[in-house]
Amino acid sequence: MNKSFLPDRNLEMDQVFMEQAILEAGEAAREGEVPIGAVIVINDKIIAKAHNLRETTGDPTAHAEVLAIREAAKVKRHWRLLGATLYTTLEPCPMCAGAMVMARINRLVYGASDPKAGAAGSIMNIVQDLRLNHRLDVTGGVMDQECGFLLKDFFKGKR
Amino acid sequence: MNKSFLPDRNLEMDQVFMEQAILEAGEAAREGEVPIGAVIVINDKIIAKAHNLRETTGDPTAHAEVLAIREAAKVKRHWRLLGATLYTTLEPCPMCAGAMVMARINRLVYGASDPKAGAAGSIMNIVQDLRLNHRLDVTGGVMDQECGFLLKDFFKGKR
Repeated sequence: MNKSFLPDRNLEMDQVFMEQAILEAGEAAREGEVPIGAVIVINDKIIAKAHNLRETTGDPTAHAEVLAIREAAKVKRHWRLLGATLYTTLEPCPMCAGAMVMARINRLVYGASDPKAGAAGSIMNIVQDLRLNHRLDVTGGVMDQECGFLLKDFFKGKR
Repeated sequence: MNKSFLPDRNLEMDQVFMEQAILEAGEAAREGEVPIGAVIVINDKIIAKAHNLRETTGDPTAHAEVLAIREAAKVKRHWRLLGATLYTTLEPCPMCAGAMVMARINRLVYGASDPKAGAAGSIMNIVQDLRLNHRLDVTGGVMDQECGFLLKDFFKGKR
């Protein structure tokens, strides 16, 4: 395989999976939740999908990423999610970034950046901290306009 | 009430609740889990107790603090744990520290410091980050020798 094709193929696959995360985010919005969605992929197969359910469940940890990680661990029957890529529509908060390190997620792909609380490069970088015992590859900005639009649209409706 | 009595009274109460967290940690050890325990207190009453259950559940987010927060939110029927103090035997990791911010926990009391991954002052300070939308009061080192001994003893047995 020509190495030069790899980035394009990756980007295309990333968009395919990010679209699924965006569908999850849309589901959250329909349920009155801040529209953030996540999917977890191993070997090009989605093994878990989730969306933010904080209000519905009353659980402060029920962010899309944490729910997807818990679901994926259930599927894999292990807390260690080797070879997993997590797609999320919004750059993760410190809790979710920390959960990705705990689960040994291999790669993080996010959509919109979160300049206020993003912990994958914006205000801190928990997923690539050399002092922690695991680090992730990170690709940000994948379909960021679509991901950000969902959030803007949701909060516009709230005002 | 004489203000000068407040620190002593607080320390005494902190020890009472930390002892309960230590009992939870002991429970974890008996189940083959890294011995870390947590309790959540509102108005001098314990509303949730938990211990690390990562191996038993296979859930990478099943740290004592996250489980206690989820339990407390169930009891309060809300993700916002106003006026809560969280006692944990070990300084929280980034995920757990982030979860405390998400749950709007008022105060964190921890036992042993974690120089390798502690996110309440050791390698970073997520619970008192001025850029996030919530900060906690923090008291560290409460019964730290007892808390640390449990961990050392557990890992000595593992080797």
